[in-house]
Amino acid sequence: MNLVDLTPVLGAAGLVFALALFWSVSRMGAVPDRMREIADAIHSGAMAFLRREYSILAVFVVIVTVLLYIFLNPQTAVSFICGALCSVVAGFVGMQSATRANLRTTLAAKESGQGQALLMAFNGGAVMGVAVASLGLVGVGALFRVFGGDFGSMQFINGFAMGASSIALFARVGGGIYTKAADVGADLVGKVEAGIPEDDPRNPGVIADNVGDNVGDVAGMGADIFESYVGSIIATIAIAATLGVGSDALLKLSADGSVSGDMLKTALTALPLVLAGIGLVASLLGILSMHVLKKIDPAGALRYSTFISAALFLAGGFFYIQSQGIATGVFYSALFGTVVGISIGLITEYYTAAGPVRRIAAASKTGPATNIITGLAVGLSSTALPVLAICVAIWVSNATAGLYGIGIAAVGMLATVGITMSVDAYGPIADNAGGISEMAGLGPEVRKITDTLDSLGNTTAAIGKGFAIGSAALTALALFSAYNQTVSTALGETLQIILTDPKVVIGLFIGGILPFFIGALTMTSVGRAAEQMVQEIRRQFREIPGLLEGKPDAKPDAARCVEISTTAALKEMVLPGLTAVIAPVIVGFGLGPAALGGMLAGATVTGVLLALMMANAGGAWDNAKKMIEKGEIDGEEKGTEAHKAAVVGDTVGDPFKDTSGPSMNILIKLMSVVSLVIAPLLI
Amino acid sequence: MNLVDLTPVLGAAGLVFALALFWSVSRMGAVPDRMREIADAIHSGAMAFLRREYSILAVFVVIVTVLLYIFLNPQTAVSFICGALCSVVAGFVGMQSATRANLRTTLAAKESGQGQALLMAFNGGAVMGVAVASLGLVGVGALFRVFGGDFGSMQFINGFAMGASSIALFARVGGGIYTKAADVGADLVGKVEAGIPEDDPRNPGVIADNVGDNVGDVAGMGADIFESYVGSIIATIAIAATLGVGSDALLKLSADGSVSGDMLKTALTALPLVLAGIGLVASLLGILSMHVLKKIDPAGALRYSTFISAALFLAGGFFYIQSQGIATGVFYSALFGTVVGISIGLITEYYTAAGPVRRIAAASKTGPATNIITGLAVGLSSTALPVLAICVAIWVSNATAGLYGIGIAAVGMLATVGITMSVDAYGPIADNAGGISEMAGLGPEVRKITDTLDSLGNTTAAIGKGFAIGSAALTALALFSAYNQTVSTALGETLQIILTDPKVVIGLFIGGILPFFIGALTMTSVGRAAEQMVQEIRRQFREIPGLLEGKPDAKPDAARCVEISTTAALKEMVLPGLTAVIAPVIVGFGLGPAALGGMLAGATVTGVLLALMMANAGGAWDNAKKMIEKGEIDGEEKGTEAHKAAVVGDTVGDPFKDTSGPSMNILIKLMSVVSLVIAPLLI
Repeated sequence: MNLVDLTPVLGAAGLVFALALFWSVSRMGAVPDRMREIADAIHSGAMAFLRREYSILAVFVVIVTVLLYIFLNPQTAVSFICGALCSVVAGFVGMQSATRANLRTTLAAKESGQGQALLMAFNGGAVMGVAVASLGLVGVGALFRVFGGDFGSMQFINGFAMGASSIALFARVGGGIYTKAADVGADLVGKVEAGIPEDDPRNPGVIADNVGDNVGDVAGMGADIFESYVGSIIATIAIAATLGVGSDALLKLSADGSVSGDMLKTALTALPLVLAGIGLVASLLGILSMHVLKKIDPAGALRYSTFISAALFLAGGFFYIQSQGIATGVFYSALFGTVVGISIGLITEYYTAAGPVRRIAAASKTGPATNIITGLAVGLSSTALPVLAICVAIWVSNATAGLYGIGIAAVGMLATVGITMSVDAYGPIADNAGGISEMAGLGPEVRKITDTLDSLGNTTAAIGKGFAIGSAALTALALFSAYNQTVSTALGETLQIILTDPKVVIGLFIGGILPFFIGALTMTSVGRAAEQMVQEIRRQFREIPGLLEGKPDAKPDAARCVEISTTAALKEMVLPGLTAVIAPVIVGFGLGPAALGGMLAGATVTGVLLALMMANAGGAWDNAKKMIEKGEIDGEEKGTEAHKAAVVGDTVGDPFKDTSGPSMNILIKLMSVVSLVIAPLLI
Repeated sequence: MNLVDLTPVLGAAGLVFALALFWSVSRMGAVPDRMREIADAIHSGAMAFLRREYSILAVFVVIVTVLLYIFLNPQTAVSFICGALCSVVAGFVGMQSATRANLRTTLAAKESGQGQALLMAFNGGAVMGVAVASLGLVGVGALFRVFGGDFGSMQFINGFAMGASSIALFARVGGGIYTKAADVGADLVGKVEAGIPEDDPRNPGVIADNVGDNVGDVAGMGADIFESYVGSIIATIAIAATLGVGSDALLKLSADGSVSGDMLKTALTALPLVLAGIGLVASLLGILSMHVLKKIDPAGALRYSTFISAALFLAGGFFYIQSQGIATGVFYSALFGTVVGISIGLITEYYTAAGPVRRIAAASKTGPATNIITGLAVGLSSTALPVLAICVAIWVSNATAGLYGIGIAAVGMLATVGITMSVDAYGPIADNAGGISEMAGLGPEVRKITDTLDSLGNTTAAIGKGFAIGSAALTALALFSAYNQTVSTALGETLQIILTDPKVVIGLFIGGILPFFIGALTMTSVGRAAEQMVQEIRRQFREIPGLLEGKPDAKPDAARCVEISTTAALKEMVLPGLTAVIAPVIVGFGLGPAALGGMLAGATVTGVLLALMMANAGGAWDNAKKMIEKGEIDGEEKGTEAHKAAVVGDTVGDPFKDTSGPSMNILIKLMSVVSLVIAPLLI
């Protein structure tokens, strides 16, 4: 019995852990009616969106399954369905948990204080984090048991990554459009036009806004990370599977030559799964450590729990790699993946919290134009360091362990996804808790706790986004290598993707266009959907008597706003989604495998840069506004001209950071996965 | 006597033509004192900037010359100086002409009507256009006579392109910062704060603003196009020089095999120069045709003169290619280069004048945030078609004539630079004429003519920018191929720049960062310089008694504003300029020639996309504001909230379209040229 055979079992154990967490989060005593009513509205809105989204995606999944069955093979089709299902289940579980934990967090803030509220929000997110990691392990682990062995059958596993990616794109794009349409619409009419506070119960768009936090930041982010997680594991397996038994590349990965080539190759092929398993255990321990850490300040607690998991993972990984006779260089790849992942998070924190934010806030004094120009400049310049960090990871992992090392670096970055995703999903739960306490009128004491937790959530969200982009970049590169190896194996000779080949250059340019194009599509979609939301909220304020005055019997029609966001998001997600799936097919069959390779490279470069630029500019604009509101800019406060200018920047940043930017991550991974799956057909 | 030996003579003849044009533009009768005073202020401001810029660049040129002399060879150093000198002379001549033609155009509008004013503005620009083409022909043609022959010595000519590129980068970046600092500063205090009209003589920044039009759009654009022109010719010569005499690649370029390999290679090596010569003659005829065309509407006149030149060039090129026994495929490359150049111009016109602009204008109704979001979305989506057009040019030219064809496509696009540059430089002259007539108080009749010519100039400027980007992309690709061939020849085997090589991927990412980084630097520079200008204009309004009230003896200190723009621009241009020159050296020597190839590819892709995005978004924002001002948006006009929102977009677009966007063109060409020059040292 090898350790790798245990991974599905480990995954199943993780799922049990997640269920226990879920149970602990969702059991609650008596809840005041008003609070329950609000929480139920958010919960049912979120679930309604998921149901409708999944029913649309079912059609897509069936069509692709049939196509894979006909043109490739039944096994890939089955893997595809498994991947899609796992992603759906992860999203569903995470959403169930988040939309209960928000209420639990509010109650804890009201009854037990900040420490307990932090724990509830964190555990609510941890259900998603653990579910993502466990489902990935169960799915890939089980398929590996069935199809593992020779290179030919191992290709079938690629379908799993494609299934996960397909769901992810629609979830990210749809969720991103939903959340920003609701947010922008509710703010524009509520805060700006009617002059009522954020999360005011009179505003019909507030429930939709809170639903949006879950739909975008929990389900969307979860699907994104799930895709990176399984993508990096599967790509690394594929790279290992193509290593020749007597080759130099394999020899370099041996610690001292004491292990036979066959055994070494088997160990290397299993390693990504085993590392993921170690990462899951490390994450669970990190999550449990929060019971102790909750007593210190929240920011420290979240950070230390992450560090604990990372350290445990690295220690476990080191000993396992040693025990298998694998070269220590492979460990360095994993180490650098982990370190670079954390570094990108810290760089993101700098650009969205420190000096650059102050510059944007100061530029707001001369009006919205200078606020926008400064924010764009910050976004543009913030791309350099994270990309250089990725380059360092590529350099070190390649130097120590070749192409295989690049895959392992991605796995290392993502292995502790259980904890990083928990920290990430914590944000929207804390945000929701703030919304519920405001709408239920729980008073300043409770609101102060939820505000503290929420503002911390903004930082963790920015860091999470940086991490998501970094991992997407490394995963896309690993998938790209796997694509190249797969085509080469099918060809019988190395596929040379040479930059002086005009077809590759054309591919590079077409790939480069796609993120710009998808960025434009998604930004336009948000604008269109927000416009509908604005019209509806204005209509309700106009037509429902007594609503704006706050008469107790005048109730806003929140369900109508939820409906508008849902319909708009689902309609608008189709075109970008299909573009990403179809583009590699057209270029691959139209211009050949080398041009497709060029396209993947071009899309990865511009996609990563745009994603970083948009996420960081958006986060910086948001915090510049908050900085002015907190009175940290000389003589400015809420309501001044500078504040109004900062609100303009924040509004521009909303679709940047929550819709268009995150779409890029999935775009580059999905296109790489589709290419990997169709690779055998391209010869 | 071969035709190619005549090119320097032809170039010299072109220079005589340019001098004659200059004489016809600058001779004038009695000029009212007030007008002369204004024109002199603009003229001397522009010349002062050039003088100071060139004295800084002299230091740079001397240092690089010494380095080239030491590390490469004296010949390359000499070529470098020649290239730099030619670029300087072209900029100097163009500026002399433009800053006289502006006054001549104003006088013609006052005394002879629109047709004559159009002719003056056009001829003023044509001096620059013809000077650029002629100096290119004289320089490259003469060096070709000296160094032409074998591959080894032909490499010396590359230094000429590097000289031209170095000057271009500083001229573009410095000019771009100058013009926008002055523009934004003058508008912000004058139009927005003090509420006085554009170009009002009371505004101390107005002269600097008018100087800026010349510095940025005449000298900067001229240096940019000059660089593309010589870069495309030299790259194509370099590619031809590496064709093996018995090779398949060469055989494919023969019409029917009737010409010997040696003769064919000689003909192909000379072809780019000869085509440029034919293009110059075609341009001169197009310029002369304006004497007849001036009677029709101005937009038609400018367009037809361009078409006439293009048709003449293609006809001449076709017969010449036939006469040399060169395959007709080579002609198709030139044809597609020309057609794609014009297509990109038309696509640019669509995005900066038609439906997309209306969408931005309509979005202004809901405030600055939606104006910005829509403008950014338009900019992002406007990248797709031009880049696809470039891909078509690559595809066709490669299919018909291999890598050599890509070079010829670039030459075809740029051969009629004499006329395209004339049309381009016409814009700022017409703009200046409007400024002079406003400041001199010439009344509504004259102003109406200059306004018509000026608004046409906005369209030609947008088209010119699209053309500059398209030609930069093709030139960069041709230079990239030349770089690859040069390294390969020196290596003795083909340099394989393979996208699965991690070093190439790292290069690709680093290259991808650079345009984002330079974009951030230049945008920040404009903000900083504009801030100084704002402070100075505010100070003058505050401290000079009677200035704002318009008392006749209260004179603004315009020279101080000119000084501020000049100093700021020259200071801010250094860092981006040095980055572009040094980056290829560091990557080339640090990571090797393959990584440097990756870097060039990455920079070209993101550079072209960002340049298009910024130029088109900027142009669209500008015209959306104008659309509202003209009352074309229901119920909106100058001064409404929607108009204010549109002004925000226009202000953001200013550094986009006139500083950061254009810097990208040069960045990608300069890095390619530097790589080409240092190629022999990288082995």
